[in-house]
Amino acid sequence: MSPQAPTPAYRRLSVEERRNQLLDAALTLFAHRAPEDVSLDDVAEAAGVSRPLVYRYFPGGKQQLYEAALRSAAEELEQCFDEPHQGPRMPRLARALDRYLAFVDEHDTGFSALLQGGSVVETSRTTAIVDGVRRAAAVHIYRHLGITDPGPRLRMTVRMWITAVEAASLIWLDEDKQPPADELRDWLVEQFVAALTVTAGRDPQTATLVADLAADV
Amino acid sequence: MSPQAPTPAYRRLSVEERRNQLLDAALTLFAHRAPEDVSLDDVAEAAGVSRPLVYRYFPGGKQQLYEAALRSAAEELEQCFDEPHQGPRMPRLARALDRYLAFVDEHDTGFSALLQGGSVVETSRTTAIVDGVRRAAAVHIYRHLGITDPGPRLRMTVRMWITAVEAASLIWLDEDKQPPADELRDWLVEQFVAALTVTAGRDPQTATLVADLAADV
Repeated sequence: MSPQAPTPAYRRLSVEERRNQLLDAALTLFAHRAPEDVSLDDVAEAAGVSRPLVYRYFPGGKQQLYEAALRSAAEELEQCFDEPHQGPRMPRLARALDRYLAFVDEHDTGFSALLQGGSVVETSRTTAIVDGVRRAAAVHIYRHLGITDPGPRLRMTVRMWITAVEAASLIWLDEDKQPPADELRDWLVEQFVAALTVTAGRDPQTATLVADLAADV
Repeated sequence: MSPQAPTPAYRRLSVEERRNQLLDAALTLFAHRAPEDVSLDDVAEAAGVSRPLVYRYFPGGKQQLYEAALRSAAEELEQCFDEPHQGPRMPRLARALDRYLAFVDEHDTGFSALLQGGSVVETSRTTAIVDGVRRAAAVHIYRHLGITDPGPRLRMTVRMWITAVEAASLIWLDEDKQPPADELRDWLVEQFVAALTVTAGRDPQTATLVADLAADV
């Protein structure tokens, strides 16, 4: 802690404000350290409050705090996918990826710890939160592509690409964020088009979509 | 248990044979049920031995048995990647994928439970075993491609494709093993070539490889 750190414990906060303050402190810690390496004392210290106060808000202790922080991060991540439904579609995807990669950049260690699994705080509930983000990403993609009823081959392609983006993000963090984010983003967009093009060879729905995207300027 | 089940408890087995017998029984159970749904009693019953005998071989209980079974499955899975280094390379990849998909087909529920995460028996050790298989897959791919020193862009492409294959396997199990395995295999090979081709646009090492593969008949 820097000596200049504010001591917000002495400000009178509403229950909601206090909860958000604790969550923000937790999120910052969980973003840059593995959950194993964050204690409730660390959260209390970062928020400038006492340990019992953290327990009053999160009686389930670190597990509950981690899940709440994860839910809050998941909401933030889903906001990355918000993109106006106008203009050519691949640039929309590129803009959403820019925001996604900025999120990955900002939450680096926490992002890796969460997705690499084997964490002591990983449970079926944390897995369900992450799966919810994946599903939200897929739904956004179908909407932007104008597909209301994706068939199994198109769905497999989109889900595979989403997983591939996650994998690429983890590798990117591993490799000291190389290549630069904008190169990675362009490469991921090209990988998406290439994956759809392969599927188009076997699936009429995807073939129509690929033809449509090619005319999309 | 069928009434015709053998009762091998009465055969005198060596320590090694007994251990393998228990592991086989455990593997079969873990392959078709989530680890949460397998008890040591189930393993004892399937192997036709007493519960204390299972504990004598695996004093760490279910967690130890699960990790041993996983290690044994990981070895079996790595054998799928063994493929003679001769003939055109994409058909080699197709044959390895055939064996891999047969493994996924055989271990369906256990395979999903393991890779989907959030399992109560998942630990940093089980994650390390799975990561070991991924690394082995990548090493096999580089060797077959004749690449001794893969650069970061080629490595990212190969690792992304390996993750995509895992994702596709899970979706395939979710979708009642549709499309048929041979169609999925061809599609995965085509996705690999397409992913390499995208990377070739930015990476001279991958560009040389793609040109080389195109001439590989």
